Amino acid sequence: MKKFLPQNLFPSDITPLSFSELNELAQEVREELISVVSKFGGHIGPNLGVVELTIALLKSFNPPTDKIVWDVGHQTYVYKMLTGRYESFRTSLRNADGCCGFTNRDESEYDSFGSGHAGNAISAALGMAVGRDLLNLDEKLIAIVGDGSLGCGISLEALNNIAGVTKNFIVIINDNEMSIDANVGALSKHLDQIIGESENEHLARGTRVGRSFTSNKDRLSHQPKRSFFENLGVKYIGPIDGHDIEKMVETFEQASQLDCPVVIHLLTEKGLGYEPAKRDPELFHGLGSFDPVTGKPLQKSPKVASYSTVFGNQVEKLGHQNDKIVAITAGMCLGTGLYKFKSSFPDRFFDVGIAEEHAVIFAAGLATKGIRPIVALYATFSQRAFDCVYHDVCLQNLPVIFALDRAGFVSDGPTHHGIYDLSWWLNIPNLTIWQPANQIELEEVLVLALAHNGPTVIRYPKNDCPTYQNIELVEVGKAAIVDSKGKDAFLWAVGGEVEVALKVMKRLEKAGIKITVVNPRSLKPFDKKLFLEQSHLAPMITLEDHTTSGGFASLTDQVINEADHAVTCIHLGWPCETIPWGGANDIRKKYQLLPEQIAEKLLSTVFKGI
Amino acid sequence: MKKFLPQNLFPSDITPLSFSELNELAQEVREELISVVSKFGGHIGPNLGVVELTIALLKSFNPPTDKIVWDVGHQTYVYKMLTGRYESFRTSLRNADGCCGFTNRDESEYDSFGSGHAGNAISAALGMAVGRDLLNLDEKLIAIVGDGSLGCGISLEALNNIAGVTKNFIVIINDNEMSIDANVGALSKHLDQIIGESENEHLARGTRVGRSFTSNKDRLSHQPKRSFFENLGVKYIGPIDGHDIEKMVETFEQASQLDCPVVIHLLTEKGLGYEPAKRDPELFHGLGSFDPVTGKPLQKSPKVASYSTVFGNQVEKLGHQNDKIVAITAGMCLGTGLYKFKSSFPDRFFDVGIAEEHAVIFAAGLATKGIRPIVALYATFSQRAFDCVYHDVCLQNLPVIFALDRAGFVSDGPTHHGIYDLSWWLNIPNLTIWQPANQIELEEVLVLALAHNGPTVIRYPKNDCPTYQNIELVEVGKAAIVDSKGKDAFLWAVGGEVEVALKVMKRLEKAGIKITVVNPRSLKPFDKKLFLEQSHLAPMITLEDHTTSGGFASLTDQVINEADHAVTCIHLGWPCETIPWGGANDIRKKYQLLPEQIAEKLLSTVFKGI
Repeated sequence: MKKFLPQNLFPSDITPLSFSELNELAQEVREELISVVSKFGGHIGPNLGVVELTIALLKSFNPPTDKIVWDVGHQTYVYKMLTGRYESFRTSLRNADGCCGFTNRDESEYDSFGSGHAGNAISAALGMAVGRDLLNLDEKLIAIVGDGSLGCGISLEALNNIAGVTKNFIVIINDNEMSIDANVGALSKHLDQIIGESENEHLARGTRVGRSFTSNKDRLSHQPKRSFFENLGVKYIGPIDGHDIEKMVETFEQASQLDCPVVIHLLTEKGLGYEPAKRDPELFHGLGSFDPVTGKPLQKSPKVASYSTVFGNQVEKLGHQNDKIVAITAGMCLGTGLYKFKSSFPDRFFDVGIAEEHAVIFAAGLATKGIRPIVALYATFSQRAFDCVYHDVCLQNLPVIFALDRAGFVSDGPTHHGIYDLSWWLNIPNLTIWQPANQIELEEVLVLALAHNGPTVIRYPKNDCPTYQNIELVEVGKAAIVDSKGKDAFLWAVGGEVEVALKVMKRLEKAGIKITVVNPRSLKPFDKKLFLEQSHLAPMITLEDHTTSGGFASLTDQVINEADHAVTCIHLGWPCETIPWGGANDIRKKYQLLPEQIAEKLLSTVFKGI
Repeated sequence: MKKFLPQNLFPSDITPLSFSELNELAQEVREELISVVSKFGGHIGPNLGVVELTIALLKSFNPPTDKIVWDVGHQTYVYKMLTGRYESFRTSLRNADGCCGFTNRDESEYDSFGSGHAGNAISAALGMAVGRDLLNLDEKLIAIVGDGSLGCGISLEALNNIAGVTKNFIVIINDNEMSIDANVGALSKHLDQIIGESENEHLARGTRVGRSFTSNKDRLSHQPKRSFFENLGVKYIGPIDGHDIEKMVETFEQASQLDCPVVIHLLTEKGLGYEPAKRDPELFHGLGSFDPVTGKPLQKSPKVASYSTVFGNQVEKLGHQNDKIVAITAGMCLGTGLYKFKSSFPDRFFDVGIAEEHAVIFAAGLATKGIRPIVALYATFSQRAFDCVYHDVCLQNLPVIFALDRAGFVSDGPTHHGIYDLSWWLNIPNLTIWQPANQIELEEVLVLALAHNGPTVIRYPKNDCPTYQNIELVEVGKAAIVDSKGKDAFLWAVGGEVEVALKVMKRLEKAGIKITVVNPRSLKPFDKKLFLEQSHLAPMITLEDHTTSGGFASLTDQVINEADHAVTCIHLGWPCETIPWGGANDIRKKYQLLPEQIAEKLLSTVFKGI
């Protein structure tokens, strides 16, 4: 039986505890983290690293009056547990209608700002600080930023703006040398440099956590050289052991009394207290359910490879054939499947850190030299670089290939769904847009994209990649008939939705309705000709893992408006709303997007008279 | 008669010249700049500031083999004059089919990268440098960045990535203390700090240009504290007088021989050599034609205020009534009309510099405190912040108002047109989108947006703002009949295009065709009801200053697809292509968008049978 948990603790329960009790609490929290996340999946490594930090914050500050703004909300499991959400966390983490895996203003007043995309915390907290100053409120503002997020342009823009607008502001750098992958970039090295120069040389990397410190007062008075932060007009305090609650509380207290903005540099260890997570921090950044004892993922290795794996294998294979190919990612080497290419061609692989804008323009620069860059991003994060895609790549018609992983619904929820981006990609000049549906198509599309002397986007979801054989060759601007039971209707399904469409086709067949499933493959150029030919014969249906507004549905609406005949067309996809987190089945069910629901809907509407 | 000009000079003509000849050339170039820009309009101040820098670059380096990458292409008039484009510059600067006002890869092999949006040069040049390294080429890479662009997140992301990927790389900082408005942010202050700490104290701001220097070798050996750049692993050289050609050439030579990436910090003066531009650098950043002797703009003050002015006046007026209103811009105080608000409420005005992403998230933070931020951006630059609009504002349904100036065609050309952004704004959750057509509507829409507890976008073009009286009150989701001659067709015109539509209506009337002009006013929610009612009666026509694909046309196509009857709808607007620079009339004519062309087209198509 735990001493503090499973009570639904609030910050007011934390403040009175002694440091030794707080350390006991940390132990209980850590056990609970492993237990809950092993069951539901989620971000275990980052949360194990911030157990003591979170407790120290709640001991020192007074949320929700004081605003604690977390960069990357997936490191807030501990915070959720200790701000009245333990029960919800324990029973429903990341479930539909359950505890959100990120900060969420609708979930709790303790979540002062939502965060799924890294790098927004300093800007958001700075806005709150200026609001506080304008309203003459007595609140403290604390932004907690990972060292990986520091290299993101938004964090840097915000750092550049702090000194000019407020005096009472604390930035905590949670330096664990990792974002999802190991951190890159000069700033990350600079943090190491500072550590090296500090008087606590035993804190050097490798042996830095848990050792004794000289007092913070000494540290405050001793800064050998001017740090990056001081060059931006922000005071630097550190490095501090981010697992020493007492030291952190003491430091937070001192920082709160300064009349200037301050950065506190904490050293933490991702996955601390759980051996499997310490051994493989990239895997244990975020994963599905696992055995808490061994750390082994519970899902068996899928028989079918994911789109990411197929992509990664094919890029590596093509890399052997063409030494002009380089691969670029923004902190997502593992997730995008590029680790194989990285291993085979380390000199042609570039992880720029959480810096999507730089990634895209860097690729554009490479393309001017005849290099063939492939930029692999999650669809939702690609939104960060839309202007660069337009201004630096497409206007100049440079042959950059964008591989958009996680393009579609993802269980993480609204901050991570790749279901909005197509509206942008579809409507800027010079782009070719592909959405392959199976392994062969993804492989061939990559070959075609490399043969094309202009920018290309390839979108695919976070799903298993089907392996069925195609009847028709992959050609740009050519849709393909996937299967046909008859011509009662034509169901055009985009990418991964072809699988769903085939199930719908089978269900309809049982009800005596015989339809044809078509895969557009290339969305731009789009096979208007086939679409309009079929639209003479029977109702058209579109199905996509994107909002219909701005997505494939909107694209076909344009085509229909140009037609010289009346076309009946039913659109299926996500509404232009905030689509929640949860299992794909649960959420698709809620939005009537399961195959059986789609079949039923069609039977009761378009096929009602038949 | 000039000695060097008007020959069509190339870099090979510059290299052999002595320093005294180069200084003579500088004088001639300066005179020519004033003469040409006073005639065609353009960016005079920035170009006067880089005359000597450009000459020194061409003396030291060997483009197009060496790649000179300019950040913000509007500072390349001198570069164009001296790289084989003098004739084209002199006769057709910024004209349709003439010399582009920005760098343009299609125009010349000397333009190694296109640049209209600030902050892309270091990333692009770094891509080229890595390409060079991979291909084992012998080329030098030089990125020239204004001090204003340094605070842009992309520049900072790129700086963070230099040291990890290449050794042979030069960044030149053209420090003139201005971008368009005076620079803001801690980095700008840091550059001053470096200058103050340098041994050349007489170089301090105010008296810094044109004084004698100690030798660069001394400077290279003496760095009192670690600069921002050195913290990022990049060597710092400076400050150097950016109007001393000989010193610059000497410095470039030294920098080229270093085996590490280097930043060279140049001090220049915007508008140097032209008194009117020195007196009013903000006005002379970029303007229309002017009297070269007096510096007075040739266009008389327009009788009708621009949309920007109407917006600025109204925000200032509302600021008196509501002390929760704050205004935020990203380096565009003058252009967005916010200078009046800034002057009345300096504590509630925030210029964050060229940092659109931070601007938007900062606003979101303010909104969580009950403050009512109005973020004024040019539509094209708002593209930089699309993800923040989605992730930080709209998903959280925070009441931030986005005022999008220059939303529509602008003479600057493809990098600056605000004709692509609507595809994004229309298809993310929770947004209200307005496109007011006249002064009263813009004023009332601002009042309505402030009364709305959610995010709002208000788009308007860089045009005079009409002052006609409305028949119908402005209401969200309600379109308005502007004028009606009859019901032969319904012409729905968006924002500033209402003026064009009224002209079309009059022309059609002369041909016996009587139509009704409708103004949708609010695009989201959209007045589907009126649109579909009218679509029963006669053909529908849409007209917009945006690409039809992804714009109002696509929005109405969605509505039409939902209708239960056949609708004829003709869409007028820009095609999804790279639309060039030039006068609005010239370019509209090319795309058949002048009122008489539209009337003619309609008469020969939809009204052919009538």
